Amino acid sequence: MTVVTNLDPKCRTSQQTPLDALADLVADDLKAVNEVIIQRMHSSVELIPQLASYIVSAGGKRLRPLLTLASARLCGYQGTKHLGLAAAVEFIHTATLLHDDVVDESSLRRGQASANEQFGNKPSVLVGDFLFSRAFLLMVDAGSIEVMRILSNASAVIAEGEVLQLTTTNDTSTSEQSYLEVICGKTASLFAAACRLSAVVADRSEAEAVALDDYGLNLGIAFQLVDDVLDYSALQARLGKTVGDDFLEGKITLPVILAYRRGSDEERQFWRRVMEDPTQQADGDLEHAIALMAHHATLRDTVDRARHYGAIARDALGLFPECAEKRVLLEVIDFVIDREY
Amino acid sequence: MTVVTNLDPKCRTSQQTPLDALADLVADDLKAVNEVIIQRMHSSVELIPQLASYIVSAGGKRLRPLLTLASARLCGYQGTKHLGLAAAVEFIHTATLLHDDVVDESSLRRGQASANEQFGNKPSVLVGDFLFSRAFLLMVDAGSIEVMRILSNASAVIAEGEVLQLTTTNDTSTSEQSYLEVICGKTASLFAAACRLSAVVADRSEAEAVALDDYGLNLGIAFQLVDDVLDYSALQARLGKTVGDDFLEGKITLPVILAYRRGSDEERQFWRRVMEDPTQQADGDLEHAIALMAHHATLRDTVDRARHYGAIARDALGLFPECAEKRVLLEVIDFVIDREY
Repeated sequence: MTVVTNLDPKCRTSQQTPLDALADLVADDLKAVNEVIIQRMHSSVELIPQLASYIVSAGGKRLRPLLTLASARLCGYQGTKHLGLAAAVEFIHTATLLHDDVVDESSLRRGQASANEQFGNKPSVLVGDFLFSRAFLLMVDAGSIEVMRILSNASAVIAEGEVLQLTTTNDTSTSEQSYLEVICGKTASLFAAACRLSAVVADRSEAEAVALDDYGLNLGIAFQLVDDVLDYSALQARLGKTVGDDFLEGKITLPVILAYRRGSDEERQFWRRVMEDPTQQADGDLEHAIALMAHHATLRDTVDRARHYGAIARDALGLFPECAEKRVLLEVIDFVIDREY
Repeated sequence: MTVVTNLDPKCRTSQQTPLDALADLVADDLKAVNEVIIQRMHSSVELIPQLASYIVSAGGKRLRPLLTLASARLCGYQGTKHLGLAAAVEFIHTATLLHDDVVDESSLRRGQASANEQFGNKPSVLVGDFLFSRAFLLMVDAGSIEVMRILSNASAVIAEGEVLQLTTTNDTSTSEQSYLEVICGKTASLFAAACRLSAVVADRSEAEAVALDDYGLNLGIAFQLVDDVLDYSALQARLGKTVGDDFLEGKITLPVILAYRRGSDEERQFWRRVMEDPTQQADGDLEHAIALMAHHATLRDTVDRARHYGAIARDALGLFPECAEKRVLLEVIDFVIDREY
């Protein structure tokens, strides 16, 4: 079983992204984290490492653990507790992916059959639970009550965000504010926790912990906003995701909320028909939706909103001295916003 | 929102069971635990407490938290940490029930529509995750690293047991040993953890912690063995469960394993047809299965196996001095084995 990361030079394109630079900067730590991940997803019940490695190794960017590792360096941390915690963060992320794919009935994840498609819903639910539990064991090993509180709380908030998303799905009258609550919960809270915990293990001031939390939270919001834009963008094919997944599920994201708010009565009628009961969707509806988004510039404006949160993330790092880690963490913000996949 | 327990004298039959006696013995603590449960399942996302209380309040016996409370008294514990931990144990149990019902596609739980039937699979998966996370937050509040390790480990072992059960379902060649591994994981590990943690918070010797673990583990095995017998017993109707649920799902439990082992070639052919592909089941198959179990006395012998584990549980308590708590914990063993529902 090998864990594939973009550390492998053969996989690298000539254009090094800030994520590659980040992985280079913490290469030894990342290698150690990957070893912890492989070791801790082991179980005598063979289906568990089989399924877990299917998703853990499936070419994820390891963005969240990379944030933990870089934040720890930014805080001058010299110990090793951050390694297990970075693995715990990746396990929590993986567990939520497994459960999300079951909840969303997704058939693709990162360009290959999703775990639920490949192994069935039942093992996906249970292996998700297993990874959650192993994440908590990793935290216990790190021995910091405060870190456990941060990550347990993030997990509860993720679940709240996901449930809130369920209740807003198909509801075209969802407000931008309630959409923000959803993405703060389901995405940004784990980014925030991944960064904050490094300040805690490094025993830095509360001000620095809050700064890293703010960086992660706002980076996470920007990341999800752009993800939601990309779901309507042709370049999504490179992610292996079919364009329009959110549309097909009637998932209400900001590009739709803005198009609905800015649309004519006739357009709103269209949005209600296609989003409130996606089974009513017909050929050409997705194209019409994308045309309306273009007309009202809602994809562009959603990226602009992402830039706003990116700017907050940037300022949050202001109190840290200049260093290689800080430079790359700042570059990651722009990368997350300007990425095309 | 009210949490219904069998503390309510109006609900009590004239025959007081050892579980009622146990609840009486720790009545104040149980009331406090119920308050923690109500408080900690709160969320601003309304669907969460709605769904959580649907199952948490649905007349569960609170057996696992009762074990924690009684064990704490047995250990002479004077503090209050056991209250939050007992609530955490119930949350973990509830989360696994929610996920189980999704995995098993159950439509009934304790005589009413299961949460997945009532609210759908998606919120059941996510509210399960929420309760898991809140359980960990409760442990964090109790502040004992050792207790967190015990319960995180139990959670991972539960998931392993459930996955193992998936891989043995429909497999008539499942051995008694591998069935035992399944029920140790999915049921007995949480009973064991619920008891052991009380010795840890009470700061008692490792020998006492191990004794309580052994008591819980073996009680849990006995409990599950009898549960599996009751699934083929007419009295199950009183539990609100349809008789033969396990049979319909092709779930391989000890009554089936023994009938298969003891059966003729023709009988084994029957078991393979009905268990390996339950869609092949026809009218009269369940009745025939029950007749074969009666012929080979596999229900009786499964209860006998339960008695064996009950005896181990009994001896495990030997090193504790005589007291009311010990007496009731011993009575609970017999009750668990001899119950008819």
